[in-house]
Amino acid sequence: MLNVEQLQEMAAASRAAARFLAQTTLKQRNDGLLAMAVALQKAEAEILAANDEDIAAARRDNTPAALLDRLRLTSARVRGIADGLRELAELPDPIGIIEKTWQGAQDITIEKIRVPLGVIAAIYEARPNVTVDIAGICLKTGNAIILRGSKNALHSNICLTAVLRKALTDCGLPADSVQLIEDPEREVTNLLMRLNGYIDLLIPRGGAGLIKNVVENSSVPVIETGTGNCHIYLHEAGDIKMAQRIIINAKCQRPSVCNAAESLLVDEKIAAKALPILAKALADNDVELRGCAKTCALVPSAVVAGEQDYYEEFLRLVISCKVVSGLQESVDWINEHGSNHSEVIITEDAAAAAKFLAEVDAAAVYHNASSRFTDGGQFGFGAEIGISTQKLHARGPMGLEAVTSYKYLIHGQGQTRE
Amino acid sequence: MLNVEQLQEMAAASRAAARFLAQTTLKQRNDGLLAMAVALQKAEAEILAANDEDIAAARRDNTPAALLDRLRLTSARVRGIADGLRELAELPDPIGIIEKTWQGAQDITIEKIRVPLGVIAAIYEARPNVTVDIAGICLKTGNAIILRGSKNALHSNICLTAVLRKALTDCGLPADSVQLIEDPEREVTNLLMRLNGYIDLLIPRGGAGLIKNVVENSSVPVIETGTGNCHIYLHEAGDIKMAQRIIINAKCQRPSVCNAAESLLVDEKIAAKALPILAKALADNDVELRGCAKTCALVPSAVVAGEQDYYEEFLRLVISCKVVSGLQESVDWINEHGSNHSEVIITEDAAAAAKFLAEVDAAAVYHNASSRFTDGGQFGFGAEIGISTQKLHARGPMGLEAVTSYKYLIHGQGQTRE
Repeated sequence: MLNVEQLQEMAAASRAAARFLAQTTLKQRNDGLLAMAVALQKAEAEILAANDEDIAAARRDNTPAALLDRLRLTSARVRGIADGLRELAELPDPIGIIEKTWQGAQDITIEKIRVPLGVIAAIYEARPNVTVDIAGICLKTGNAIILRGSKNALHSNICLTAVLRKALTDCGLPADSVQLIEDPEREVTNLLMRLNGYIDLLIPRGGAGLIKNVVENSSVPVIETGTGNCHIYLHEAGDIKMAQRIIINAKCQRPSVCNAAESLLVDEKIAAKALPILAKALADNDVELRGCAKTCALVPSAVVAGEQDYYEEFLRLVISCKVVSGLQESVDWINEHGSNHSEVIITEDAAAAAKFLAEVDAAAVYHNASSRFTDGGQFGFGAEIGISTQKLHARGPMGLEAVTSYKYLIHGQGQTRE
Repeated sequence: MLNVEQLQEMAAASRAAARFLAQTTLKQRNDGLLAMAVALQKAEAEILAANDEDIAAARRDNTPAALLDRLRLTSARVRGIADGLRELAELPDPIGIIEKTWQGAQDITIEKIRVPLGVIAAIYEARPNVTVDIAGICLKTGNAIILRGSKNALHSNICLTAVLRKALTDCGLPADSVQLIEDPEREVTNLLMRLNGYIDLLIPRGGAGLIKNVVENSSVPVIETGTGNCHIYLHEAGDIKMAQRIIINAKCQRPSVCNAAESLLVDEKIAAKALPILAKALADNDVELRGCAKTCALVPSAVVAGEQDYYEEFLRLVISCKVVSGLQESVDWINEHGSNHSEVIITEDAAAAAKFLAEVDAAAVYHNASSRFTDGGQFGFGAEIGISTQKLHARGPMGLEAVTSYKYLIHGQGQTRE
């Protein structure tokens, strides 16, 4: 197994690459992205063969179809991954921006300038596209990346990383800008999480278990991503038809993602009229409704919800439902039960919407739109490295700026402090 | 001892207070700050009596004079602390600012608005002024604070916190905006560091041991503060007289702080001329010089430096010194040995300065000014909650914005995701 000294050596090589990348021009980094895209498409046969090995092993382990699908690469998917790199190359430079210039004490001139974070590590599950996505975002932002993918995608990841490293070398960039931890031992992850001073940021991407493990055990700074227990609140002044469209979109368009709706709150003043209509639409879309006593009285087909149902992120065609007394209860309920991800009010009452948007404590709070828009692409960020569910550093969809930091440059003429 | 449920209850009360504070106007929060200032000065006798108990106990424990001085409150210090609150009340509102508005997919309107972080916890050593400083900064920024001071300042902290809470209640703000953990057991700190979901940010303030313990054991997001192994590099084109002034200021004006200089790098092309002059100035100021072989050859009174001396934050009148071959070696040396805090080049060569400022990886990089300016007050931030030595969230001196987050408000007309 890799020991801590070997991991430190690896991270030190990443640090050297990061120092190089921090001094590159935008053109050098974009050329690297384009070279990576070309190299991936050229190596398609090799990549698909490596991926076949992972798929075959996963089949032997009786991996569920949904996970197999995430693991699988195809010609079209390799093209899609390469196109993602080309799109990154089109984006403006996220680093080197002087955000502010001012005079400090004794007329020292202070500039605040955007810089790369340095060395980033990512721990993620068996999705080989993530390997390239994160490597691309890190190159664009001048960061070095240490990848720690799932052992179920190891053949794919080894092949992809080798292709990327070769492409980088070919255009004069350090191969160690992208490194993969190949050792499948779990203990290596634990060592990685304690490499303070070597790694500036650790990003876990994957299921709740993986993220919880990283948050609880990492002493390296982490950005927590993932859990979304998102609510749709239909206010008494809400348009029921709009509510129906938004609820079906937020629940059914892609139930397995963090910005899908998991719970419906209905104002008691509109419940008798609205709930049967909404319940029918949900049933027509094969969604199981788990409701409070008032819900069940209005919708005989609803299942009685337990307290735990209101805390659960179902990630499948199940939705909890509660009839609330009004706006204040909806705000309090969401702040108590939600995961501070994406929350929606449906109302034609501007004052009610303003109160909801102000008082609900979540990364994204919506008035009359689907929670499914909480996404870097939909927000127009061009690229997304994940959706933060913490408040420190970055909140909500994280674009390129989320993997940068800043430093202060101070220009003096010999000033000393009095 | 406080158990985890009791701590959770305490943090839940902080959460409720934080939700209230997040909806207050600037005037309400400023009135709270002014009421706290008045109340502290009115309660001066009571506060000094409580502080006397801490001082008496510390004397019995043979606490060193420097620590006693930090622990001691006087009439003038209470006035100073109260004036600090009044200065906070003068600052502009750090929250509620709409930083950006744009159109996302399908013309949803997205606003990025600055909001409080929520519940902050601070772990700090025996300086009762920190109790009020942090409480004030948190109130100004709409955050609730849980204070975990040193048991050596417990009488002072209990008294100060009671005065602040009473002042808050009197002006209609929640007393639980400011809470103190009174239980002196160390294990309580460990529980506090694991209260994920209850606490949004943990700030350790104090010595290296305290900070290391928090960074290594906290699963709650932390901002690391503290260590400064700061270098002054005299380039071959530097003004020796300016170097002398800056070095003496950076080393001697307040040797115990993190932005004091700990190491001197001298270009070999100027060393023979400059080092004897600089060494004499340092000796005149009682600074011990620990040098490399070349330094010792030029300065016979210098002590031979060991490798460890170049990594050490002396925090006293000792400075390490190394003769370097030029600009590149100085950059590489600092990036290897420094703590990414504050680094200085002294030169009249603009190109050399530009390279140093670009390539040195530190929160603050200076050209021809003392490292002692790395400070919220000197930077003009109005208030400072600490100096971050990490890259995530906040770097360098942290003003009010460092204890805020943001959220996205999305305004739609029924949009669903395609």
